[in-house]
Amino acid sequence: MKNLEDLFLHTLEDIYFAENAILKALPKMAEKADSSQLRQAFESHLKETEGQIERLDKVFNLFGKTASGTECPAIEGIVEEAEEVMSDADDPTVRDAGMISAAQAVEHYEISRYGTLIAWAKQLGQSDAAKLLDEIMQQEYSADEKLTKIAEDGLNRQAA
Amino acid sequence: MKNLEDLFLHTLEDIYFAENAILKALPKMAEKADSSQLRQAFESHLKETEGQIERLDKVFNLFGKTASGTECPAIEGIVEEAEEVMSDADDPTVRDAGMISAAQAVEHYEISRYGTLIAWAKQLGQSDAAKLLDEIMQQEYSADEKLTKIAEDGLNRQAA
Repeated sequence: MKNLEDLFLHTLEDIYFAENAILKALPKMAEKADSSQLRQAFESHLKETEGQIERLDKVFNLFGKTASGTECPAIEGIVEEAEEVMSDADDPTVRDAGMISAAQAVEHYEISRYGTLIAWAKQLGQSDAAKLLDEIMQQEYSADEKLTKIAEDGLNRQAA
Repeated sequence: MKNLEDLFLHTLEDIYFAENAILKALPKMAEKADSSQLRQAFESHLKETEGQIERLDKVFNLFGKTASGTECPAIEGIVEEAEEVMSDADDPTVRDAGMISAAQAVEHYEISRYGTLIAWAKQLGQSDAAKLLDEIMQQEYSADEKLTKIAEDGLNRQAA
């Protein structure tokens, strides 16, 4: 990687891989969810994620590239932790609390990556790409807030 | 894991492992930093991390436990990505931009984990633990903001 555009594209491939990994993980999480509110949140984020991948395709195109992923050990680690909590939690409400926590770790990872990508896209004079990435980041912020609300609306209390 | 306290302690062990992993990674990142401002930021966060580990020891004690870590694949993945960018970036400023991005992914992972732990500690009636965890989380927020400032103060422009 010789310049900021190389670094941008590498990080874009990283988050493209991550979003596709999440697309695979979300249906399993929705299936395991005990709370119907949580299941719906996972299902609606699944649809959002499909739209986000389409936006990422467009960002690649703006840089004259075709979308492709590069292995992202960070998201693999976060998803591995989600699977661990899904299998180790004996109580359905405790499992839900653990899945919310894992999903919020995913959201924060993504928020961090999109924040960086937006700053770099602007620096590279690619304001259309920055706009698309910002649309995705706002959805990640909303998804994170929705999960906090579900946890605080009673799920944590039940799990305790 | 049968109840919220089990889940809390598991997640506390996860972040304890993560902070110790970061304690090992930061000196290497400081050494590789080209910008003296970035090197100082990594060095000062190293000192902060030592204090955070002491606070985590106290949180374990409040729950009648001795501090211990459990493998955290998420932080291992994020650190692996940091090492990748450190070795793959040919230009020192591009390497700095990549290290900032990786360090911010670490901060966001930690912010997410501490946010969850604070909510759970409060639910478990452990307000002293929640306070200690909140002190750490505020430091992570500041560290993240400081990195954004270094990137936006000229480093991204240089890298482009």
